[in-house]
Amino acid sequence: MLEAVEEDNVIEVMAEIGRNAKTAATALATATPEQKNHALNATAMTLLAQLPDILEANEKDMIAARASGMASSFLDRLQLNEERVVAIADGVRAIADLDDPVGATIAEWDRPNGLKIERVRTPLGVIGVIFESRPNVTADAGALCLKSGNAVILRGGSDSYHSSRAIHACIVAGLMEAGLPADAVQIVPTTDRAAVGEMLKGLDGTVDVIVPRGGRSLVERVQTEARVPVFAHLEGLCHVYVDKSASLEMACDIIVNSKMRRTGICGAAETLLLDKAVAETHLKPVLDALEKSQCELRGDAGVVLLFPQAGQANEDDWSTEYLDAVLSVKLVDGVEGAIEHIRQYSSNHTECVIAEDTEVVERFFNEVDSAILLHNASTQFADGGEFGMGAEIGIATGKMHARGPVGVEQLTSFKYLVRGSGQTRP
Amino acid sequence: MLEAVEEDNVIEVMAEIGRNAKTAATALATATPEQKNHALNATAMTLLAQLPDILEANEKDMIAARASGMASSFLDRLQLNEERVVAIADGVRAIADLDDPVGATIAEWDRPNGLKIERVRTPLGVIGVIFESRPNVTADAGALCLKSGNAVILRGGSDSYHSSRAIHACIVAGLMEAGLPADAVQIVPTTDRAAVGEMLKGLDGTVDVIVPRGGRSLVERVQTEARVPVFAHLEGLCHVYVDKSASLEMACDIIVNSKMRRTGICGAAETLLLDKAVAETHLKPVLDALEKSQCELRGDAGVVLLFPQAGQANEDDWSTEYLDAVLSVKLVDGVEGAIEHIRQYSSNHTECVIAEDTEVVERFFNEVDSAILLHNASTQFADGGEFGMGAEIGIATGKMHARGPVGVEQLTSFKYLVRGSGQTRP
Repeated sequence: MLEAVEEDNVIEVMAEIGRNAKTAATALATATPEQKNHALNATAMTLLAQLPDILEANEKDMIAARASGMASSFLDRLQLNEERVVAIADGVRAIADLDDPVGATIAEWDRPNGLKIERVRTPLGVIGVIFESRPNVTADAGALCLKSGNAVILRGGSDSYHSSRAIHACIVAGLMEAGLPADAVQIVPTTDRAAVGEMLKGLDGTVDVIVPRGGRSLVERVQTEARVPVFAHLEGLCHVYVDKSASLEMACDIIVNSKMRRTGICGAAETLLLDKAVAETHLKPVLDALEKSQCELRGDAGVVLLFPQAGQANEDDWSTEYLDAVLSVKLVDGVEGAIEHIRQYSSNHTECVIAEDTEVVERFFNEVDSAILLHNASTQFADGGEFGMGAEIGIATGKMHARGPVGVEQLTSFKYLVRGSGQTRP
Repeated sequence: MLEAVEEDNVIEVMAEIGRNAKTAATALATATPEQKNHALNATAMTLLAQLPDILEANEKDMIAARASGMASSFLDRLQLNEERVVAIADGVRAIADLDDPVGATIAEWDRPNGLKIERVRTPLGVIGVIFESRPNVTADAGALCLKSGNAVILRGGSDSYHSSRAIHACIVAGLMEAGLPADAVQIVPTTDRAAVGEMLKGLDGTVDVIVPRGGRSLVERVQTEARVPVFAHLEGLCHVYVDKSASLEMACDIIVNSKMRRTGICGAAETLLLDKAVAETHLKPVLDALEKSQCELRGDAGVVLLFPQAGQANEDDWSTEYLDAVLSVKLVDGVEGAIEHIRQYSSNHTECVIAEDTEVVERFFNEVDSAILLHNASTQFADGGEFGMGAEIGIATGKMHARGPVGVEQLTSFKYLVRGSGQTRP
């Protein structure tokens, strides 16, 4: 691994990291599942063995963060302890236990001339992960990329610099124990922001995709500047629509869970759309349940009329991702009105319809084009783990390649293998 | 449709085309298979009914092309006649007959908590197709995009301007007969090159993907300037490797077909790699067969020594896509040497291994990362029609989203539909 670098040296260092990653990617693409799992399990063991070193490194980051007056939520994200490191190690082991996506046959068919065509998964190549203060992303992203046969370049935030490097050292130990190239998982050895700019330019064509893990400003910068594909979502402006055919009790449970289980995640609901036809009967019980769970409510005129405790929503509320215990509420003209509102304001992440009328559900599923659509289930299920993908490197809202939770399968491409017996084309 | 525009108006006109396409895409995404097929079959009928008008428009383009002294190969690509228009109409009908990709379930599984997860195909949205002189691309690309539920913006070369517009008018008639928005298939009403620049910038986020259809300089410009994803290949530098375990007779047939069936297509072979171990026995018969079919040969030193009729290859030959009756030939150290050469020079389009030793085949398939790998079959099978995809809008060599032949399935994205019965997340 490269040591911390001079500022004016960043371009050169990053170019070398890119070249090393590309070389490692070639070796990794043909590594066996056993080798990759060996590396992952050895990483998990090393994480536990190196616990004191990791906590010591983390303490350096914590001291600096406290000294610069960071908020307690920030300090909580940055903090490591024995329990958290054990959880990180368990996460790496769980990724080892997933099915290996590389080489899996996605489709196969025969042609009338006897050619046998097979589409098989291949790694994407080199993945650049740019993240902020959570040191655990080092292990999660490193392990997901390794499992899917990709080399990865990790660039953590300056706040978690020491913690991330300590975790990264354990991954390198795991790679070496399995006989895989140490450069398969590299960490950028500088906190200079120019390094991010270099990654976004693609390091001379060596980076195949960039995954930003962090807040809106990071994702925005990445989406604006990147000259390579990006797997990301800018925001999760998720809607729950309650149809007149909905079970009222189910509606109360789902909306409270969608909003309040964890308010800071991208799958948290931000807007409730209620069918006008049942405003008189359904609005109050639903909003009572939300108020009881300490949720602030901002409604349109119709909502405030029927539920005066709610604040008045303004136009900005419909396009605000609160990531907090706040919910905007609007009365709509049935599923058509809901679809119209969602088309205008949604970030195409996740939307939910609560209804018993299957025609309403099918229309919602057919006409709303977000990555994840749920029927009678909480928006907080928008998660690779909950989808059974084992783990995710993030959730994507683009339409190209990966959409929704990005797990090991989504970190692959494919190639066609065609087996013949001497066929020539007439 | 917009009429021909003033030069200084291009930005505004293109922005309007983008907005119209986005609106049409929403309608098209929920169009039924029957509606889309109705539009396609009506287009095919109109093409035949309007044959005199199409030929008259084509004659205008031909007169201009002849006047500007275009080469005969160019004039041949541009020329339409009754037979060719009938073939275009048949192609549109064949696309109607394909399975509708939209709404198809790609994968489905259940979760332990009872959630039923389904991944279904959705259109990509708006596709921009930039092509050169072949007027048939208007119908092919328009039909493929329509079938896959995408709106399309077609920008043909100035040489085929009248022909393309005449064909486009038939598609608009087909759309209208089926009650689909005419803007689902738009043609750029100006030959101003600034229009291409606007498309490459994405028309204010309305264009989801760009497909360039044409020569190297067009594809290069598109890949350099595009700020949206591109489905393309820059070149098809395809290799055929003949292993020592190959059947000599099969090797002769396949290499002659791979190189000479049509030399101008992207799947034509450009380099022959022969296992050194059988140079003494195999080289002469293989090169004799090629010479007999009028192929010019350029060999490395070992090749020239054994087959003095061959010219001497220089370093540039290994990275030249001749698209002509010329083949570079090299002796390599078995499959390992072949893989090494391919890694260095290939454009990752299509490669072929001729061998009877299955270990050699598996190693070649495993370690070469091109979009299409063939065993004992001609590289000229690298084609969506030959793959059974019905038709293709092109072949892609990128690793993201679409790779290899791009047919109607590859012009789709997907979304997740999750069906619950009141599940909330613990």
